[in-house]
Amino acid sequence: MNKTEYIIRQLSKTNKKDFENYVVTRIWHLLNNTNLKFVTQQYVKRPNGRALTDMYFPQINLHVEIDEGHHFDIHEKQINLDLIRDADIINATGNEPIRIKVCGNGRYDVDINVINSRIDDVVNIIRKKFTDPSIVKWDLESEYSPLTYIKKGFISADDNVSFRTIADACNCFGNSYLNVQRAFFRHPLEDRQLWFPKLYPNKDWNNELSLDEEVIYMKKIHNNDEFFEAQLTDSRQLKERLTFARVKSNLGDVMYRFKGVYKCDVDESNKNKYFVYKRVSREAKTYSPIVKK
Amino acid sequence: MNKTEYIIRQLSKTNKKDFENYVVTRIWHLLNNTNLKFVTQQYVKRPNGRALTDMYFPQINLHVEIDEGHHFDIHEKQINLDLIRDADIINATGNEPIRIKVCGNGRYDVDINVINSRIDDVVNIIRKKFTDPSIVKWDLESEYSPLTYIKKGFISADDNVSFRTIADACNCFGNSYLNVQRAFFRHPLEDRQLWFPKLYPNKDWNNELSLDEEVIYMKKIHNNDEFFEAQLTDSRQLKERLTFARVKSNLGDVMYRFKGVYKCDVDESNKNKYFVYKRVSREAKTYSPIVKK
Repeated sequence: MNKTEYIIRQLSKTNKKDFENYVVTRIWHLLNNTNLKFVTQQYVKRPNGRALTDMYFPQINLHVEIDEGHHFDIHEKQINLDLIRDADIINATGNEPIRIKVCGNGRYDVDINVINSRIDDVVNIIRKKFTDPSIVKWDLESEYSPLTYIKKGFISADDNVSFRTIADACNCFGNSYLNVQRAFFRHPLEDRQLWFPKLYPNKDWNNELSLDEEVIYMKKIHNNDEFFEAQLTDSRQLKERLTFARVKSNLGDVMYRFKGVYKCDVDESNKNKYFVYKRVSREAKTYSPIVKK
Repeated sequence: MNKTEYIIRQLSKTNKKDFENYVVTRIWHLLNNTNLKFVTQQYVKRPNGRALTDMYFPQINLHVEIDEGHHFDIHEKQINLDLIRDADIINATGNEPIRIKVCGNGRYDVDINVINSRIDDVVNIIRKKFTDPSIVKWDLESEYSPLTYIKKGFISADDNVSFRTIADACNCFGNSYLNVQRAFFRHPLEDRQLWFPKLYPNKDWNNELSLDEEVIYMKKIHNNDEFFEAQLTDSRQLKERLTFARVKSNLGDVMYRFKGVYKCDVDESNKNKYFVYKRVSREAKTYSPIVKK
């Protein structure tokens, strides 16, 4: 995927709602800068649950919400969790979204010049934030490259890091895989595991990630009791897990998003008779590929 | 309908094709001038038939075509006439459309900065044309008001004039109607008729407008022969008809578009045994409302 495809596909997602398409395309075209990344219809974790923001600029951690006036909840568009079980949900720490009000009570009763002027203000806010020299230009390739995070020295759940393949994620920790499809790996340099679970109910597992993303529940759909008894004595179960959730990206592709390091809570697990993992860190150290001798 | 509704609804029509939406919204947002009118997906009459242009600026008579690279005909998007029988088709005299090429052979293989730069050129061309001081600012109300054409002194098929109601059209010629629904009126000030036909096959009529819009064929579906014999002796049949075709506007509303003045060709009609009208003028004089004594 190149920037052309990315930008066109992102904008085309906004096509269902007329005002949303107007506002999102206007912000994009007036910013007029292909070094800025944007995401439309991004699911985010919020203190009070999960929400959808209409336009998100990850480099400056800024969200834009288009208020079409028909939301009963003034605070946030609440999400039907069943419909987004495998959705890519990111952390949205810090800023409140910027809101753009496009309608009054009637559907078209706000002067287009008033809407344009409000959008101009938002464009200026975004432009100003982008003058920060520490901001890295949008580069589609480096964003998904293990090298980027190896150079950085760590990955963090707060930076919303995701990879296109399990191999790419593994290769942040000393591996040099070309293609792998397992869900579980030994960390080659630490006494930890690399884990790529589906954190939502699926045909084999009744997994769940808590809303605050601090706890993972893992339950097998068939023969959970036998599985639980057998695995509890496996020493690997007690090791910390660098966890990459398998998610459907915002453009429909499978991605693996780093959620942090989780560790089995043995007491909780024994009480429930299924595995409970708790987050012990939001960050993990990265390593260059191990040179084979 | 206000400008907000008009603009939002026009842009939302482009939502089916990704690149079209990108180009059309970019042109509109970069022009950034609500005194300019635009139409998306406008049907136009061309020397070689009928065509659809992606974006049309009526004040400067400029058409933009987005070339997504999958058209086999390099010249024009040809139209399935059966699907647009009642569509609003305008005259497009003069300029060739400006073309914006967005794709190579692969769907996304043109750099977004190259596409943007081509669109910038087109935006500059449009902006320059709009500096002409003779151009009237876009005013949604006056555009459809009889007063505008009364002041002008005439209406012309070349100016693509349409009205929202039959009454508005009639009121360009001395009438003061509030609401009328007939298809046929006596011109109050000239020995002519005002005619509001459906120029396409419908449940009562098998009417047709020739592709060059010079000839109208009118045939009744039931009992045409009797109708023809009876009407041929009616003196009104031979009078010139200021003709407003009933059309579905580009946003789905019924409109009455002035096509010119047509006159029955008696020889042709007798030969065919149905009425044939030929255009005798593209213009008609307008009149202020007659003051009743």
